[in-house]
Amino acid sequence: MPLAVVGFISTVGGAATSMVRPISESDLEPLAVGAWILGAGGGGSPYHAYLNIRQLLRSGRGVVLMDPASLADDDLVAVVSNMGAPLVGQERLTDPEIAARPVRMMQLYLGRPFDAVMSLEIGGGNAIQPLLVGAMLDLPVVDADCMGRAFPEAQMTSFAIGGLQMFPLTLADIRDNEVIVARAASWLWMERISRRVCVAVGSVAATCKAPRTGREVKEWGILHTITRAIGIGRAVMAARERHDDPVAALLSHAGGKRLFGGKISDMDRRTTEGFLRGSARITGLDADRGRELVLDFQNEFTIATLDGTPRAMTPEIICVIDAVAGEAIGTEMLRYGQRVTVVVLPCAPVLTSEKGLTLVGPRAFGYPLDFRSVFETGFE
Amino acid sequence: MPLAVVGFISTVGGAATSMVRPISESDLEPLAVGAWILGAGGGGSPYHAYLNIRQLLRSGRGVVLMDPASLADDDLVAVVSNMGAPLVGQERLTDPEIAARPVRMMQLYLGRPFDAVMSLEIGGGNAIQPLLVGAMLDLPVVDADCMGRAFPEAQMTSFAIGGLQMFPLTLADIRDNEVIVARAASWLWMERISRRVCVAVGSVAATCKAPRTGREVKEWGILHTITRAIGIGRAVMAARERHDDPVAALLSHAGGKRLFGGKISDMDRRTTEGFLRGSARITGLDADRGRELVLDFQNEFTIATLDGTPRAMTPEIICVIDAVAGEAIGTEMLRYGQRVTVVVLPCAPVLTSEKGLTLVGPRAFGYPLDFRSVFETGFE
Repeated sequence: MPLAVVGFISTVGGAATSMVRPISESDLEPLAVGAWILGAGGGGSPYHAYLNIRQLLRSGRGVVLMDPASLADDDLVAVVSNMGAPLVGQERLTDPEIAARPVRMMQLYLGRPFDAVMSLEIGGGNAIQPLLVGAMLDLPVVDADCMGRAFPEAQMTSFAIGGLQMFPLTLADIRDNEVIVARAASWLWMERISRRVCVAVGSVAATCKAPRTGREVKEWGILHTITRAIGIGRAVMAARERHDDPVAALLSHAGGKRLFGGKISDMDRRTTEGFLRGSARITGLDADRGRELVLDFQNEFTIATLDGTPRAMTPEIICVIDAVAGEAIGTEMLRYGQRVTVVVLPCAPVLTSEKGLTLVGPRAFGYPLDFRSVFETGFE
Repeated sequence: MPLAVVGFISTVGGAATSMVRPISESDLEPLAVGAWILGAGGGGSPYHAYLNIRQLLRSGRGVVLMDPASLADDDLVAVVSNMGAPLVGQERLTDPEIAARPVRMMQLYLGRPFDAVMSLEIGGGNAIQPLLVGAMLDLPVVDADCMGRAFPEAQMTSFAIGGLQMFPLTLADIRDNEVIVARAASWLWMERISRRVCVAVGSVAATCKAPRTGREVKEWGILHTITRAIGIGRAVMAARERHDDPVAALLSHAGGKRLFGGKISDMDRRTTEGFLRGSARITGLDADRGRELVLDFQNEFTIATLDGTPRAMTPEIICVIDAVAGEAIGTEMLRYGQRVTVVVLPCAPVLTSEKGLTLVGPRAFGYPLDFRSVFETGFE
């Protein structure tokens, strides 16, 4: 039952500033498909979160999507995420009550209710985390995130690039453990401490990051990314239904670039320190026969090296797509023998700013490389 | 300038229930000496904390010792400790302001001031931690702890034996990191989570454990342990001044037993997971010539094995004493070639109850042994 909603509609008579629309069941699968692609291999599969939010909507709960422009400057926005190693997220299912718990904790801690909720990262399952929270706590979901994709670490956000405060953070697990990081000396300390707690409770935990004002979200958020993910999902699904090439539809809709096609010939993957790290070796087929692409990852793909030369790199969005279905393949799902197409999508401009690259560029992941965009002419 | 204070004096005219006395500089060295002995090799050297509290008293700050009997049932008591690996505690000095920080955090978090402060463990530097906090925040120090010695893990307390609530806990480091464990699923989860946070900030942190009511302290605390530590310290120091045998004075004052005398012939020691673990091998001298004692430790000494047979075990207080000076030697201070006497002091009776032994007996440390007291007749 597709609900043809394009853009936002005003629900408040005459008040053009309050732009919200209900999220319908027909938005959910496109959102899951698009978010999984924007995950750059990480963020964890949205599938379980998708099943959860579909169930919540079918059971009568509603959730609305809110244009960030309609946030008041002093509105308080919860930034939520399911934190941990994607491989563990596949084994321990998302639960809306657990997703909402750190938000309830933060409200108690601050002594103030939230006005809205948003995602830390649009990539992967965390695209759907704020929908679960919004449905449970009756909060509108802001159409924005602070990564525009997925990233492995807490300081890899547009809010950190903007130099905003990184605390407090609340964290809950499935066992009744609840932790508040009340202050952190820096974004890196916040990442380090919250990561250790996450690992202590089994490498997966629901979190509510430092609360944001409406003004901070409007200034430093990456805006309209839920709409972007739904649009990407719809384009891929429509091509699939038409028996067209879904990868071509993705590239055309999202302004991306095809990098490589081939078969996975080797995998090296380990879960360590709360992350999934490793690399995939892809042997070229068809137009790429005789060439080899190596994809490194830390939850997400970081660098694509073609025949020994770095060819695409973080923060641009490197994706491995199932060549037939057009579905993204996460770093935890890569298997020997899969036929894949590797594509690159543009990232939010704030990520390639000078401060942005120090936090999410190749050097932030330990590579002695200056960032070069795959979309730059002459970089072949 | 010894101040001859024996027992408690009433400072409130006629009110026999309010028994407090000022702590004087002459109490401090005996407290440090006695607490280091009661540390069973752990708890960290009290020396830096001793210098800090002496400096605070000399600068005009005061702190009073309060008999637990004078706590009102609904008084709120802060339980403080410097948490971490003793070896790290030797390198990063105690700071009264940092010691007080988690107590301030807890007051803010609870929205209620404390009425008093007490130590988690009388053994080692944590005997002095509540004096630092009391002097900084003008709170009386309760003459009690919840270990009666030192133990390595958070669930190894008389409060855990009593089944009391284990949260919230606050933790602060020297860098402006502050963490609140708001809830924990069990004492073991509280230990696991707070330990990981402690390791994340460098294996040493100031903490305020779950707040206690006056009634809980009176029911489940181990009472008058500051007085016990000061008494032990005075006995040892007096023997030293008289050129008497300080070990004999210790055993006579504290009701302990001499186990072994010899020279350390081998050390195995590593800092791992926030603990100092290992074992010391002691080759017998004089009366013990031809015999060998092995002391295992996890921060504190756990088992003393004489010629292959377990001879003394946790929770009884195994101490290694410098044979000449009568000073305790911590597990982080043991060195090849030291001449030592190994003694055992009785522990608080609550620790050898059935529930007590499950938390602090040999099996709690991974040894397949039933507890047997070294003071039991016939156990030779």
